[in-house]
Amino acid sequence: MDIFTLKHQEPTKKDFIDTADFEQSEIVDIIKLSRIVRSYIKEGGTLESLYHKTLAMLFEQKSTRTRVSFEVAMAQLGGHALNLAPGAIQLGAHETIEDTAIVLGRMCDMVMSRVDKHESIEALAKYSKVPVINGMSDRVHPTQGIGDMITVFDHWPKGKKINDLKIVFVGDATQVCNTLCEISTKLGFNFVHYGPENHKISDEWLEIGRKNAEKYGGSAIWSEDPETLKGADFIYTDVWYGLYDKETPKEVYMKDFYPKYQVNDEMMAATENPNCKFMHCLPANRNEEVTDSVLDGPNSVAWDEAENRLTAQRGLVLYFGRVGQKTLDYIKGQKEVK
Amino acid sequence: MDIFTLKHQEPTKKDFIDTADFEQSEIVDIIKLSRIVRSYIKEGGTLESLYHKTLAMLFEQKSTRTRVSFEVAMAQLGGHALNLAPGAIQLGAHETIEDTAIVLGRMCDMVMSRVDKHESIEALAKYSKVPVINGMSDRVHPTQGIGDMITVFDHWPKGKKINDLKIVFVGDATQVCNTLCEISTKLGFNFVHYGPENHKISDEWLEIGRKNAEKYGGSAIWSEDPETLKGADFIYTDVWYGLYDKETPKEVYMKDFYPKYQVNDEMMAATENPNCKFMHCLPANRNEEVTDSVLDGPNSVAWDEAENRLTAQRGLVLYFGRVGQKTLDYIKGQKEVK
Amino acid sequence: MDIFTLKHQEPTKKDFIDTADFEQSEIVDIIKLSRIVRSYIKEGGTLESLYHKTLAMLFEQKSTRTRVSFEVAMAQLGGHALNLAPGAIQLGAHETIEDTAIVLGRMCDMVMSRVDKHESIEALAKYSKVPVINGMSDRVHPTQGIGDMITVFDHWPKGKKINDLKIVFVGDATQVCNTLCEISTKLGFNFVHYGPENHKISDEWLEIGRKNAEKYGGSAIWSEDPETLKGADFIYTDVWYGLYDKETPKEVYMKDFYPKYQVNDEMMAATENPNCKFMHCLPANRNEEVTDSVLDGPNSVAWDEAENRLTAQRGLVLYFGRVGQKTLDYIKGQKEVK
Repeated sequence: MDIFTLKHQEPTKKDFIDTADFEQSEIVDIIKLSRIVRSYIKEGGTLESLYHKTLAMLFEQKSTRTRVSFEVAMAQLGGHALNLAPGAIQLGAHETIEDTAIVLGRMCDMVMSRVDKHESIEALAKYSKVPVINGMSDRVHPTQGIGDMITVFDHWPKGKKINDLKIVFVGDATQVCNTLCEISTKLGFNFVHYGPENHKISDEWLEIGRKNAEKYGGSAIWSEDPETLKGADFIYTDVWYGLYDKETPKEVYMKDFYPKYQVNDEMMAATENPNCKFMHCLPANRNEEVTDSVLDGPNSVAWDEAENRLTAQRGLVLYFGRVGQKTLDYIKGQKEVK
Repeated sequence: MDIFTLKHQEPTKKDFIDTADFEQSEIVDIIKLSRIVRSYIKEGGTLESLYHKTLAMLFEQKSTRTRVSFEVAMAQLGGHALNLAPGAIQLGAHETIEDTAIVLGRMCDMVMSRVDKHESIEALAKYSKVPVINGMSDRVHPTQGIGDMITVFDHWPKGKKINDLKIVFVGDATQVCNTLCEISTKLGFNFVHYGPENHKISDEWLEIGRKNAEKYGGSAIWSEDPETLKGADFIYTDVWYGLYDKETPKEVYMKDFYPKYQVNDEMMAATENPNCKFMHCLPANRNEEVTDSVLDGPNSVAWDEAENRLTAQRGLVLYFGRVGQKTLDYIKGQKEVK
Repeated sequence: MDIFTLKHQEPTKKDFIDTADFEQSEIVDIIKLSRIVRSYIKEGGTLESLYHKTLAMLFEQKSTRTRVSFEVAMAQLGGHALNLAPGAIQLGAHETIEDTAIVLGRMCDMVMSRVDKHESIEALAKYSKVPVINGMSDRVHPTQGIGDMITVFDHWPKGKKINDLKIVFVGDATQVCNTLCEISTKLGFNFVHYGPENHKISDEWLEIGRKNAEKYGGSAIWSEDPETLKGADFIYTDVWYGLYDKETPKEVYMKDFYPKYQVNDEMMAATENPNCKFMHCLPANRNEEVTDSVLDGPNSVAWDEAENRLTAQRGLVLYFGRVGQKTLDYIKGQKEVK
């Protein structure tokens, strides 16, 4: 496992802003790397690959999973993550994001940020001389996407072929939906957004999904027809209240989504697949977008999915903070691991 | 000292919610372990017993001693503590404590929390698959209790027998008073709550104290009579303003406690024991519940007591994060150490 | 490099409150130590000199550079920094700064604090039994001063003699200006404060600068005359809005400083030195006290200066947390390093 500790290898400046910026082979490498490291740590192995390296975590919004998973990932790899909470530093008050990016890039080895606006993460990446990881913007949630694909592989339906896998995202087309459309079609899966027209996935993202599908053999569609649930291997949903900084009032979103788009036992049955798994990026608004019976039920993999945020973050900080040709060659030489 | 680094030993899921949940022998083990580790570190030893292990610290209230002592303890044992400050994560806003508990238990190796309501720490313990430590609730303050007993042993009156030791808690029956009643009687000491009737320790806790006393040979009483101070080995007090989230106005509490229950030179003299020590869990409201002359005087052990929060936390994270039969056997084999 | 890891050497209690408290030789030692360590780390070396040591960082104000640089410095030296953010602990609410100082000194190995009032850092130093570092007060900014002098040496004008170097601080005489006057004259440089009379450096600091100058061969003056810019090797500026806790309204400060004291291309040209460098402690209020063209221009060393906060903090935590005669002897034996 020493392969990940390449002392004399300078990391290149490569950012992780959007899964759409990466080739299929790169996404597969990140997923493989994440799973190899998980396996190694579960067996009692310890790593010092990011020994004395630092990750600045810059939050413009509250976060539980992103915050905890990155901080734990850095600690487990011998490094340290700095929590720059909303309002904790000069950013926004007395300093621009560009100047903050330059300074963090001078002191830290990597930057991860959850931003209100996608332009901010692009500015951080442009002005920081170290790798920048997007911890969620209003456009995409790429680290979630990596964790989600790890979860899909962990719960792969026996005997299913790549191009036959079907994943249905239900409800509001959030940034999680955008990234799921992109990454699932990049891996060759069949993606469906099942939601009301006034909350449908944008034509831009659907087009990105379709282009991926042409290349890799899956499909990407939006539909309001419950028939589309049939044969789903994974049902995925997210909250209905929209973005944290401009939440939709409950009476408005309930009219749009409830009861048709609530993931409950009836909807799970409508897949006609008793092994269909349930996914949720969390936090969940229990008994709104998903019932307790589904979230806490035997087919829910939402908690494994949460744990896989950590699996993904370890892979991501290694890949962007440390990776070189030697590591890549090593990953390619490994079979898919549990 | 390698005995504390038991690589192939899986910690069992055992929580530290209330000292009342534990046998005398377990409390003694934790105290011995804490003192052994202190001794080892003071002599220049270093430990990696919690190498790459993580502790999530979840605060619903401000904290100085609990926060700093746990974070330093984890660092000194090779691990890392995450500070999840009030309002920093989704908890309370978009996520229930139960769901937060599941997620933290999937990513971290232990959880410590200071909560507004005791039910919350119970929920964290129930839903988290990793050990949960109570960093203070409205009912008890068990980590303080361990540190306090270490302080008592550190300043043990020469030649005194266990069942002759007398500790008097003065003033408002806070959660610190409840835990002190429980743990001191469990160790066989004589406990007194000396305070006004409308702030007296509850019958429930007094009964717990009495049952301990029957079993272990001490006593537990409440009294308003200054005579009860006579022969005290330790005078202990806490602030008068009550719980942080619903503080009592100064004019109200002063009427209840002042001047009778202020720990001052006269009260210390009333013990008729020139070696009687003064304890305070801190923070102190100087010249309200205690005068400067006592808090800063030669008989004050309040600052040693603060330092022993760290002594206790190291023992606690080791005991709950790592302990196994081998460690327990080792501790039992050790004589009491300084 | 093992010289910095002196296991059996107890650090003495020595605080870093103000550069004026130190001899020239001590300041030179700190600067040399900082540069030696930078050099060592840049070449791929790793240090564990502060292995398991902890630094409490106590902030009464927001901070980016001070916070990040100290936290990274501790991580890179094997230790851990605790971020005690404004409002995070009992300080100010339920506990005095004196009591907080005693407690932090009992649990941590060092304390660094950014305070509103200079008296607070003095109280922390007086009551804490461990070394205390001033992370900025309303009077001085000594860690900035060390980083600034490192930057001056990094960009030393070829062939210039110590007593010929000229550094001009432009604009408002902030605490950064005070420290720059002190430390630059202590090193034998020529210091000028070029600013309006109602914002001029105090007579007290000018006198300190003059006394240094007598001893070490430089000079210290205040002037409103643009002629004074001639021959400057470094132009330095800071924001115009004053202290964070009592900011001056824009219309007021613009009248005082704009346009005469804005550092722009014309002012840089007025130095008649095409190699004159531009410095700024940051954050910058772009196009107020400095134009984009200067801050982002080829002569700006402001970003190197920001990075040197980290260079300085490593030296400072080593010097005050660990240093002994052996380390000092080692430093003295080293030639000036890049």
